Amino acid sequence: MTEQILDPHDMSFLLYEMLDVEALTRQPRFADHGRDTFDAALETARQIAEDRFRPHNRKSDLQEPHLRDGRVEVIPEIKSALDAFNAAGFTSANFDYAQGGMQLPWVVAQACFAWFQAANISTVAYPFLTIAAANLLQSFASEDQKRRYLQPMLEGRFFGTMALSESQAGSSLGDIRTTAEPLGDGRYRLTGSKMWISGAAHDLSETIVNLMLARVRGGPAGVKGLSLFVVPRDTVEADGRIGDSNDVTVAGLNHKMGYRGTTNTVLSIGEGGGCVGELIGQEGKGLAYMFHMMNEARIGVGIGAAALAATGYLYALQYARERSQGRHPDDKDPAAPQVRLIEHADVRRMLLVQKAVGEGGLALGLYAALLVDRRAVDPQTHRRERANLLLEIITPIYKAYISERALEANDLSIQVLGGYGYTRDYPVEQFYRDNRLNPIHEGTNGVQAMDLLGRKVRQQDGAALEALLAEMRATAEAAAGQPELAAEAAQLVAALDLWESTTAQMVAAARQAGERAYLANASLYMALAGQVTLAWIWLWQALVSLEALEAAPDAPKAGFYRGKLQTCRYVFRFELPRVAPLADVLARLDATCLDMQSTWF
Amino acid sequence: MTEQILDPHDMSFLLYEMLDVEALTRQPRFADHGRDTFDAALETARQIAEDRFRPHNRKSDLQEPHLRDGRVEVIPEIKSALDAFNAAGFTSANFDYAQGGMQLPWVVAQACFAWFQAANISTVAYPFLTIAAANLLQSFASEDQKRRYLQPMLEGRFFGTMALSESQAGSSLGDIRTTAEPLGDGRYRLTGSKMWISGAAHDLSETIVNLMLARVRGGPAGVKGLSLFVVPRDTVEADGRIGDSNDVTVAGLNHKMGYRGTTNTVLSIGEGGGCVGELIGQEGKGLAYMFHMMNEARIGVGIGAAALAATGYLYALQYARERSQGRHPDDKDPAAPQVRLIEHADVRRMLLVQKAVGEGGLALGLYAALLVDRRAVDPQTHRRERANLLLEIITPIYKAYISERALEANDLSIQVLGGYGYTRDYPVEQFYRDNRLNPIHEGTNGVQAMDLLGRKVRQQDGAALEALLAEMRATAEAAAGQPELAAEAAQLVAALDLWESTTAQMVAAARQAGERAYLANASLYMALAGQVTLAWIWLWQALVSLEALEAAPDAPKAGFYRGKLQTCRYVFRFELPRVAPLADVLARLDATCLDMQSTWF
Repeated sequence: MTEQILDPHDMSFLLYEMLDVEALTRQPRFADHGRDTFDAALETARQIAEDRFRPHNRKSDLQEPHLRDGRVEVIPEIKSALDAFNAAGFTSANFDYAQGGMQLPWVVAQACFAWFQAANISTVAYPFLTIAAANLLQSFASEDQKRRYLQPMLEGRFFGTMALSESQAGSSLGDIRTTAEPLGDGRYRLTGSKMWISGAAHDLSETIVNLMLARVRGGPAGVKGLSLFVVPRDTVEADGRIGDSNDVTVAGLNHKMGYRGTTNTVLSIGEGGGCVGELIGQEGKGLAYMFHMMNEARIGVGIGAAALAATGYLYALQYARERSQGRHPDDKDPAAPQVRLIEHADVRRMLLVQKAVGEGGLALGLYAALLVDRRAVDPQTHRRERANLLLEIITPIYKAYISERALEANDLSIQVLGGYGYTRDYPVEQFYRDNRLNPIHEGTNGVQAMDLLGRKVRQQDGAALEALLAEMRATAEAAAGQPELAAEAAQLVAALDLWESTTAQMVAAARQAGERAYLANASLYMALAGQVTLAWIWLWQALVSLEALEAAPDAPKAGFYRGKLQTCRYVFRFELPRVAPLADVLARLDATCLDMQSTWF
Repeated sequence: MTEQILDPHDMSFLLYEMLDVEALTRQPRFADHGRDTFDAALETARQIAEDRFRPHNRKSDLQEPHLRDGRVEVIPEIKSALDAFNAAGFTSANFDYAQGGMQLPWVVAQACFAWFQAANISTVAYPFLTIAAANLLQSFASEDQKRRYLQPMLEGRFFGTMALSESQAGSSLGDIRTTAEPLGDGRYRLTGSKMWISGAAHDLSETIVNLMLARVRGGPAGVKGLSLFVVPRDTVEADGRIGDSNDVTVAGLNHKMGYRGTTNTVLSIGEGGGCVGELIGQEGKGLAYMFHMMNEARIGVGIGAAALAATGYLYALQYARERSQGRHPDDKDPAAPQVRLIEHADVRRMLLVQKAVGEGGLALGLYAALLVDRRAVDPQTHRRERANLLLEIITPIYKAYISERALEANDLSIQVLGGYGYTRDYPVEQFYRDNRLNPIHEGTNGVQAMDLLGRKVRQQDGAALEALLAEMRATAEAAAGQPELAAEAAQLVAALDLWESTTAQMVAAARQAGERAYLANASLYMALAGQVTLAWIWLWQALVSLEALEAAPDAPKAGFYRGKLQTCRYVFRFELPRVAPLADVLARLDATCLDMQSTWF
């Protein structure tokens, strides 16, 4: 395979030319870093992704993990890929030097991670979950818990999971039933079962550290009764040694449409009465702790979706450049040679969609990751708060809108390859199948839409939305000064005004119509917000590209910048106008779906 | 499994209440028929689909056909399903009594066929191809060819294929290279290779009758040099006995993302110099003969796509009615029981999309199939010609638009089921994978869009488009008389005016801008045409439903009719407004995609 997994030029463009991540090195935490160390990390990621992750992507799809004597075996290539991942320091990339980490900015760590996601999303899911769990422990675990659980995770010896869902409680975590009985010594006896737990069974690490939501017996119903526990697969002694089995058993494996290299399990908790967990932080705060890491995990899901869109795009692009088929409609000579697929306008359209979603999705995801850094290290409180506000509102938009559009991109990769794309001899159909999980896990896209419209848009009197719109207006203002982008700038301003006025109309109308009517079309609101956000991120890229072209019009990268500009135009001309009809439905709190009766279907 | 494959009430509604297929029985060819015989055929189809087709749908997906000693073996359930299919007369359903057929109208045969497509699209692909080949032979083969090939096909003893594509000529049939050398006795020696040939290797029938496009040596380049040949797998003697192998060998099997029960082959033609074919009709007319049956085959592909959308919808619907998850947004009591999924507005939206596409897609497909009957049996020439015109323009719209929307519907079926839908324990992910072929085969959707805008819209000075718009205006006019549908009627008229004026602007602008610019956004034109057509078919259904409700407002089926009305409203409020921004791009012959350069990607 000679295809690129991702485009390193584009990655550099996004990180340095667009997002200026080097500015982070002015902060003490990142003072040792510079573009050289960032690039070294990215290059290492590219290399390992190419050498160790991509080669077994199809094999993982064909040879699923299987149960043997209660343990789950995975193909050996996963272990060797993860050993390389860990040896290169990616498990602890963003952690402190004192913990053995590289103290890399989150945005750079995420950019590195995107290479692995594009190369083999199911293998990198193991560290994805481990890092999410590690970040949570870093924030909320006791020093003793950090020593016994977090440190071995950062060393790659223990892997982690997020054990939330149960079969009756997927989107509705308040209905979790797994029970925790206090043992009086700060420990709890857990009983119940968990569903959809990824990475909770394998032979890849010394043990598995499950972060589990459960309900302390006698506590309140709903989410207020949920507490968070460390529930390792095997007991971890005070001195860190691994002891007996902790009675967390695999009741079964789920067999999925894609993402097949990641074990996904049904867990039986304490069936033999011997499962002991340790409380993290305080009782009743479980969901709050979970949500603390949720933004980062959801951004990570979105980046994974975008990375699969981007890699599918690059594959389809190379195919379209090499494969000849048909002629131009005004060429009537049947003896003339066939032209390359990429010469056909409709193939270009399909590639433009993929480029818009893949590169635009990565751009937006890295912007969101940069907000995580700014929230942590900016010296000014109000700027940290603003970064947090922006992150709060961008997270559901990014996770839901990009994961949905990324599927569309992968679907079009298949279409560009035609019959070939439909076969398992080419990778694009697997990209689609793997990516199909992203609109479902870490909160379904319907749940994200409710989160956006129901909570984020209204929180702090609309401060988050106001902050986001202000960011976008600043970009539009800068673009308005460029004659070549003035039309797009005006179009973005109009779209932002429409978004804002539609929201205001909805909030006003909801006072009469009530909460159900307000939220009935949340998915359409998501479509509007996502489409405007994607347009904004493309105007931003176009602006940077135009400035680069003006500075050096004949540079070897002129084509690259021209492509960014043209993709921006595609988004503004072909996609952004879609928001107007959405706004109409939203503004009137259209009740068509709400009014449809169950018995009418 | 207790789930319905399709909804028999809806099928009756479409055939009798909406399309009035009983009117066909006034024509001599169908004089023996009546609703009783139609219903008997439909009920038989339902039964066989349920008993013999659906049970092995997943098994076919898991146990693909495999090569053994140059022959391909398929699981035995396929053979017994097809035996039942054949014994019930479905292979020859639309053929003459004299040929052993049932002389059923095509529309009824297609309605029966939809049951099999919904139950197991890869098993029914064998008779799908056989019937398509049989229809072609019926029209163009000699009496001797009919006796030796067609008759055994109608008896289910021989199966057929359409052997068109080659690896370098998928969408571009003019580039076919398989060569035919005249032997002087009316027979030809064929050499070459074919790609993507479905059903060309299996152990299900006595032999396989390939209808193959090839180029007579010395003939013109391009499509004008293509002739059509009968190329059986085994020689068929004058007395009908099967003789030696005809040197058509399987060079390999394609391994697809779905549709796995249908063998799909790479064929080697005459590698040993021993492949003999018989010309059908005249030299150089191959493509014209193929196109004769293409409309019917493409309508069949669209009905298959719609059937998969409809069956996925019914599955998701039942799941949404049974599965409890979450609460209403205004219900803050965590101790209250969870509500059914179907209570959530966003789940209703997802079900409405699926209902709109599934039922609407079947409605439009059966309307198109009825045109095939009218074209054949209407006593008045001008009405036969009008039916032909309508069929010509509806075919690409139906095939492309419905197959694309049907995928969206299946994608939403997965989303309604959430994590469960993503597993192979539930059938919806297979529906998506099977259905993913439909936008590719029988002419990719990009090719359909070019056919629509490049040929069909302009043929006979726009007569086909004019006829279709007139049909739709008649429905709008009838609906305008109903106060409950007046708004939708006016909206449809506006959309039709927009479609018409946009087309006129494009044709006018193309005089200056040229053919490439005219066709550059053909896929968007398809989206516009398809969306308006879907809205029309729903207004028609709503009108019929409203009349039924007025006649018997409290009938047990009132909910059914109310559901049709509400789905119509969903389409008009949520979907039809999408056409305005498409029309803007189209009317200005937007060159964004055309102008994007290969080197800019």
